[in-house]
Amino acid sequence: MKLKSSKSKATKTAEAKKERLLALLKSHGSSIYSDLDKGKFPQFTIPSRSVSNIVYDKKLRQYILGKAAALRSARNMSQLRSFTQLSWLAFFVNRLIREGKSSTLRDIYYSSQAFAIDFEDQPESDNIIVDLEAILTHAREDLHIFPEERSSVFGDLTIEYTVPGYEGKRVNLSDHPDGYLIGPSLSSAEIVDTSAELVIAIEKGGLFTRFVEEKVHKKFKAIIVDTAGQAPRSTRYLLKRLNAEMGLPVVILADGDVYGEHIAMVIKSGSANAAHLRELTVPDAKWLGVWATDIEKYKLPTIPMTESDIKRIYELQKDPRYQEGNWKKQLEVFLKLKRKAELEAFSKYGLTNITDKYLPEKLEIAKSL
Amino acid sequence: MKLKSSKSKATKTAEAKKERLLALLKSHGSSIYSDLDKGKFPQFTIPSRSVSNIVYDKKLRQYILGKAAALRSARNMSQLRSFTQLSWLAFFVNRLIREGKSSTLRDIYYSSQAFAIDFEDQPESDNIIVDLEAILTHAREDLHIFPEERSSVFGDLTIEYTVPGYEGKRVNLSDHPDGYLIGPSLSSAEIVDTSAELVIAIEKGGLFTRFVEEKVHKKFKAIIVDTAGQAPRSTRYLLKRLNAEMGLPVVILADGDVYGEHIAMVIKSGSANAAHLRELTVPDAKWLGVWATDIEKYKLPTIPMTESDIKRIYELQKDPRYQEGNWKKQLEVFLKLKRKAELEAFSKYGLTNITDKYLPEKLEIAKSL
Repeated sequence: MKLKSSKSKATKTAEAKKERLLALLKSHGSSIYSDLDKGKFPQFTIPSRSVSNIVYDKKLRQYILGKAAALRSARNMSQLRSFTQLSWLAFFVNRLIREGKSSTLRDIYYSSQAFAIDFEDQPESDNIIVDLEAILTHAREDLHIFPEERSSVFGDLTIEYTVPGYEGKRVNLSDHPDGYLIGPSLSSAEIVDTSAELVIAIEKGGLFTRFVEEKVHKKFKAIIVDTAGQAPRSTRYLLKRLNAEMGLPVVILADGDVYGEHIAMVIKSGSANAAHLRELTVPDAKWLGVWATDIEKYKLPTIPMTESDIKRIYELQKDPRYQEGNWKKQLEVFLKLKRKAELEAFSKYGLTNITDKYLPEKLEIAKSL
Repeated sequence: MKLKSSKSKATKTAEAKKERLLALLKSHGSSIYSDLDKGKFPQFTIPSRSVSNIVYDKKLRQYILGKAAALRSARNMSQLRSFTQLSWLAFFVNRLIREGKSSTLRDIYYSSQAFAIDFEDQPESDNIIVDLEAILTHAREDLHIFPEERSSVFGDLTIEYTVPGYEGKRVNLSDHPDGYLIGPSLSSAEIVDTSAELVIAIEKGGLFTRFVEEKVHKKFKAIIVDTAGQAPRSTRYLLKRLNAEMGLPVVILADGDVYGEHIAMVIKSGSANAAHLRELTVPDAKWLGVWATDIEKYKLPTIPMTESDIKRIYELQKDPRYQEGNWKKQLEVFLKLKRKAELEAFSKYGLTNITDKYLPEKLEIAKSL
């Protein structure tokens, strides 16, 4: 007779992940002890994150780190400080994971003071957190360090929590029409089921609400994600999971300006800052709009670009990801127009124009992208 | 035999509110028609929002408008533009309410273009929205115009939605530990039930998560609200309702600086900009901290104030609400210290110090405030 386990699949998956992370931290800790036992100075080897070691990988379609590595050795006086900070952070993160507690970048900075670990300022502790990410090749969210910014999600998506006190509990993210925050619990939850066939990421809360009101989730069988501007990492992580685990295509709607185009690009291929990670990109994500060419096509009300908008276009024109196709073309048209249009601009044609006309037209066009 | 109504109390309350608002709009519309029938130029009478007409009411403990009023008459060439804008807005809002659709300030600006109504820029349309609020003495949220910013709430609070498609549906806001967005659906929902005895408003998302993790909602029988900085109006409206409808005391935790003190003050007594409204204040709300005096008492890590921090203290010292008691005292101590401390600073004493020590101590002190 087979005994039925009282633990759900989600709980077991979460526990296995936790054990893997703890084992990884332990292996680094052990190597410090082992070095000390051998009379050697302990050290960390960190993939170099200097500009010269960040390259765009066309196959992976994201930035990756090259082979260069940096040492943080207890032997070197100038590295002793960062070696100690890194050792403390690994210790602290180990505790966060064991105790199932979450933290923020700011919080880590202050927490160090409880242990008399000296960080000059938060940028210094932030930098050490990225070092640890690079060493472990795990996003800081896996290490229970979450962003302060929160975006949200809505749609027929059933998740099962794995955070303490909520293990095994399931919710369907269509029960609260204002949306569910994408925080630590949602990020660490298992995705159980969905009837959706598409994920629509949209830049603005007001339009997220419009989409829910106009039942875009039903009409287009979609999960709707509010990125609230540049998508926070936990939001990109969720988009990645919906794409990779559930096989859902991801499309992106953002304001018709250079920042909107880059919001889409970062969801698709990440950022140079996160070249050491693989969990934050959705290479097949499609940017639906608002394109520069949509501004003329739909005769949208526009706003003149500022100097910094134009400067940003020139910057992105140097980025390897903007060297071809539609990404390149739209930057050129933006530069020619020197004007931008917001998603709300479609309200010129009525409140539901964006959901009734623009969205279906662009989804049709996206099929050939 | 008595037939049981198929509509819930919440649905009926919401419908009654909707009818009241539509009747109010209709009465203003009728007076325009009636003026026209009599051969008179139609006009709106708007309570004046000029600085000279805004007074602090010690009894109501908030700013209110005096008796001065302004006219927007179709007779006066210089008022014809704003008269027309206002008439259009009343028409448009009437449609939003009838159709159960929501909008944002930005969206209203663009929507006007669908009707060839001219607004120079968004500040002009924002201003007309406040005029309509003042005329109707209803917050723009009642008129289905919501802020873009969203904050969140968590705790044992059962609500019943009244928005289209969700009428009669209930949720308990403790099912999703990352928190529920306070958007149009939550703002318009009926509050059904709660076991909470207290509402804790906290300035930051990271600490909101910590409070949930440390089960503050259970230990202190509390509903926890993340204000995400200065509380958006829909958040202040929810705090007001939890206080007025459910009789729950409201306490506020914000960063230990002049902005934190003012976040608490605005939750308590509103702002001069909203002197025409009564739904956005919680006069009995208590500011728990972080006080300037807490910085020394708890030996918190601090950051030096900037020039603009100090300038802001001088500004608030002229505000009638900061002329006495603890509000006055703390401004003085901030000015003396010229340093500030964040809520996260308590992590110096361990991650749970803020929930295990600081919060209970301050709640005890609050009893005598």
